[in-house]
Amino acid sequence: MAEPSPSCKEISQKAQEALLAKIPSEWRIPSSILSNLPRNVKPVFKSAGILTPQELDITDATDATTILEKIRSRTWSAREVTVAFCKRAAMAQQLVKCLMDIDFEGAIKRAMELDEIMEKTGQPVGPLHGLPVSIKDLTIVKGMHYSLGLAAWHDRKSDDDAVAVKSLRKAGAVVYVKTTMPQTGMALETTSNLWGRTLNPANTNLSAGGSSGGEGALNACHGAPIGIATDIGGSIRAPAAFNGLYGIKPTSRRCSYLGNTIPVPGQIAIPSAIGPMGRSLRDLELICETWLQDRPWYADPSVVPLPWVRQPAPQKATIGVLWFDEVVMPHPPVRRALRETVDKLKAAGHEIVDFKPYKHSYSWDVTLPLYFPTAARQLKEILAQVGDTMIPSVQQLSKGTKELTVPELMKFQAAQVSFQQEYLRHWNETASLTSTGQPVDAILCPSAACASFPHDFLPWWGYFSVWNLLNYPAMILPAGTVNKEIDVADQGYVPVTDWDKANHEVYDPELFDGAPISLQLVGRYLEEEKLFAVANAVDRDALQGRV
Amino acid sequence: MAEPSPSCKEISQKAQEALLAKIPSEWRIPSSILSNLPRNVKPVFKSAGILTPQELDITDATDATTILEKIRSRTWSAREVTVAFCKRAAMAQQLVKCLMDIDFEGAIKRAMELDEIMEKTGQPVGPLHGLPVSIKDLTIVKGMHYSLGLAAWHDRKSDDDAVAVKSLRKAGAVVYVKTTMPQTGMALETTSNLWGRTLNPANTNLSAGGSSGGEGALNACHGAPIGIATDIGGSIRAPAAFNGLYGIKPTSRRCSYLGNTIPVPGQIAIPSAIGPMGRSLRDLELICETWLQDRPWYADPSVVPLPWVRQPAPQKATIGVLWFDEVVMPHPPVRRALRETVDKLKAAGHEIVDFKPYKHSYSWDVTLPLYFPTAARQLKEILAQVGDTMIPSVQQLSKGTKELTVPELMKFQAAQVSFQQEYLRHWNETASLTSTGQPVDAILCPSAACASFPHDFLPWWGYFSVWNLLNYPAMILPAGTVNKEIDVADQGYVPVTDWDKANHEVYDPELFDGAPISLQLVGRYLEEEKLFAVANAVDRDALQGRV
Repeated sequence: MAEPSPSCKEISQKAQEALLAKIPSEWRIPSSILSNLPRNVKPVFKSAGILTPQELDITDATDATTILEKIRSRTWSAREVTVAFCKRAAMAQQLVKCLMDIDFEGAIKRAMELDEIMEKTGQPVGPLHGLPVSIKDLTIVKGMHYSLGLAAWHDRKSDDDAVAVKSLRKAGAVVYVKTTMPQTGMALETTSNLWGRTLNPANTNLSAGGSSGGEGALNACHGAPIGIATDIGGSIRAPAAFNGLYGIKPTSRRCSYLGNTIPVPGQIAIPSAIGPMGRSLRDLELICETWLQDRPWYADPSVVPLPWVRQPAPQKATIGVLWFDEVVMPHPPVRRALRETVDKLKAAGHEIVDFKPYKHSYSWDVTLPLYFPTAARQLKEILAQVGDTMIPSVQQLSKGTKELTVPELMKFQAAQVSFQQEYLRHWNETASLTSTGQPVDAILCPSAACASFPHDFLPWWGYFSVWNLLNYPAMILPAGTVNKEIDVADQGYVPVTDWDKANHEVYDPELFDGAPISLQLVGRYLEEEKLFAVANAVDRDALQGRV
Repeated sequence: MAEPSPSCKEISQKAQEALLAKIPSEWRIPSSILSNLPRNVKPVFKSAGILTPQELDITDATDATTILEKIRSRTWSAREVTVAFCKRAAMAQQLVKCLMDIDFEGAIKRAMELDEIMEKTGQPVGPLHGLPVSIKDLTIVKGMHYSLGLAAWHDRKSDDDAVAVKSLRKAGAVVYVKTTMPQTGMALETTSNLWGRTLNPANTNLSAGGSSGGEGALNACHGAPIGIATDIGGSIRAPAAFNGLYGIKPTSRRCSYLGNTIPVPGQIAIPSAIGPMGRSLRDLELICETWLQDRPWYADPSVVPLPWVRQPAPQKATIGVLWFDEVVMPHPPVRRALRETVDKLKAAGHEIVDFKPYKHSYSWDVTLPLYFPTAARQLKEILAQVGDTMIPSVQQLSKGTKELTVPELMKFQAAQVSFQQEYLRHWNETASLTSTGQPVDAILCPSAACASFPHDFLPWWGYFSVWNLLNYPAMILPAGTVNKEIDVADQGYVPVTDWDKANHEVYDPELFDGAPISLQLVGRYLEEEKLFAVANAVDRDALQGRV
């Protein structure tokens, strides 16, 4: 990567110092610990001695739903919960650089107000009463920074909340931190000249994923009970997958995206989607339901007016398994997780059929120019304002693109529409494979072809991005961890594409050992509730207790 | 207009001759009548002596619902109904040139099959059992032509049905004719070198409207009980309004558009919408409901999976009235219809508030470049293939546009998104005007600033197109006819824009006398059922019995 300009470096240094200054000295991790960190930094949260036993209990609770129950039962106050997560988030920032703004004071003040209301009325203000929620950089929060990891935007603050944030606050949530994303957002890792690199807490030699890598790392550190992220090509799912979290990328336009900063507005073919990542499926559904109960279509004209109607998890689901997209062969641990999960699902009585990939390589050829119709020209102009330099993975991703003419753009947009029609037909045709005569309920596939990757590596986006091009909802389900003894490298594998070759060569059991593995479950357009129902069945019957 | 090439003229002549050849000689109107037609050709259907008394009864029935009841009760057979409409459509073609393909034989055969099924099973095949339905040119029908009024496409036939057509057939509908549209579809009148000019049957000196002018003219002639049309900027509503019909442009993506021919695919900012026009609101809702009950989202990935749920007409609706969009003052008869309707609604107990227009002039500045991002370059290339020449109104409309770059297109697309957000806020703010404290249920406004216009005139699209830019559903409700004695020209009116001046100058009570007047009722994004409910209330309380 080219060196950023001195002024860019100065901006970044000041921004990072200002952020650090928001962390009280008693929450600072001693330099003796910081200078000698293990590859997996998670044990430090207990060993550093900063968190009290109660704070460890709170932050290590099963999930947000558990925390909410304990607040409602007055076991924990909202203040206690908020302080615990503020402290742990402050520690996470020092260990893996996952934050880009902090409002501990405002959060604790709000938590105390919530405690008072509960005291006076005996009632919570809403389903999220007292729950700290972390928010990604680009989602605007009143009085807090947003930057998209762009040094040129280091001093931008919002005077309003995004629609999704308003709904969370109304339901009782407490906003206390904003989390990092890579410069421009178009990366599956999280690094920028402005905020530095966000590390994967389970293995700091591996990427935390991106673009919502700050959320992934913070939640994996238990520095947040739930996080709000966005996804245009894997940005919720990669960090969820690489950090062992649950995550959902809903259909775009199901939840409100209004108030999410878009670096270059006007790209409408592949809209980004907002969604939660966290520790359980029930937490994720609680967030989605809370949003939808607020009827966001009356606040954001792009939201489809489709109320959230929960569905029960089926006893017997019909699931199509996409083993390999014919572009990049998943690494051994990913294949193992998928195979073992399928075996358990079959044993539990679910019907499993093979789902053939449909032109996934072609889908990328349509997707990439739609991401970069101007070959990132406008982004480069923003970077140039302060001598910011493009991060290597975005540079590598965009370098093959060219500035399109309008007729060329229209051809790609038309190709997307046709691909959506063909893929729907393809999905419908699975009816010929099932005993019910109905198409499969969902597709189970790798989250990515890897469990993570070393820093600055450009991974294959296809397992994520094909569902963005199609605009299908997609869920990440944790499915164990890499075991270097079992997950040995493929010997003699002959890659089928350049992407496949790069992915094949990057696998190293020693490097990946202990990294979380995840699977992806994909539903039909705007059928989030059904996807949750099937995900609950898969989680219940095949994934509980996986390590 | 430039002269089309000799080969274009030859193509057109042959196409029109081939079409005429599909009309049996006994259904031909004598040249003695054709050579001496009154301005209002509607009386000819009875006076020509071609239709039997029963055929007149059938075709002049109140609405499609009445016809369906009479088929179900065996008063009329499907065959009798189909033959009656085939004959009347054949006559309409000779009087106003509203057809571009005919399949009388296939239709009558299908009607006889339906009669047999009813005979054998005692049951109709579906809610549209035996109902003839006319289909617009661009909506594909198996074995029939589609052309978009382009001479270059004179010999195109489809080997499949559009999704919407499939659903209609499944419900028992009989397809028998396809109707004209203007060359390219981007006109509010209906003319092409290929098929000639479609006339307004109530007044052949006035436009039948467009782009679904064939549907408008045919249905106004009672040559169809219901018609299927499409609308990207007024194309359902102008013909419905100018011909005294009910019509709805649903939100685009509510009903399936798959199988509608798009001249230059890939324009995705303002998608066209498909919808019915006909003789009653209940007919329109029957068609929409029939489509949605077929779950089109499993056949067309662009359709929102939102089942149709009927709503009762309210006793008291809250309606915002948009009297004037501040760009073009509606003609006297349109203002009178709106005023009289509002008076009746008030008298019936509805709450009426003024709805201020929000940047309607600006909305057109955003809309036009999104319609023609390449300044119609690709359209011109198609025309040039056979020496077809652009019709004057399209030429005039597109001449001010320029070929955009991708960043320019993105700016207009971003401007559309912002405008949608601002307009939603604007609508929500009507809550401060109502006694309920809720925003208005619907907006009542002119359909257009005129009741029609003379041929080749370019009218102001704004009263229609603003709802396309916003993607709100909009309904046309017939509201009487122009009365030259009452609706005298405005004396001394000072136009506020060039569009206003042209519209002001085109009004002539003598020319417009007897032309249908209509009003437009606009609902919120994807809330078609509520729009129908309010429309039913408006129709019941203010429009029944209007002449």
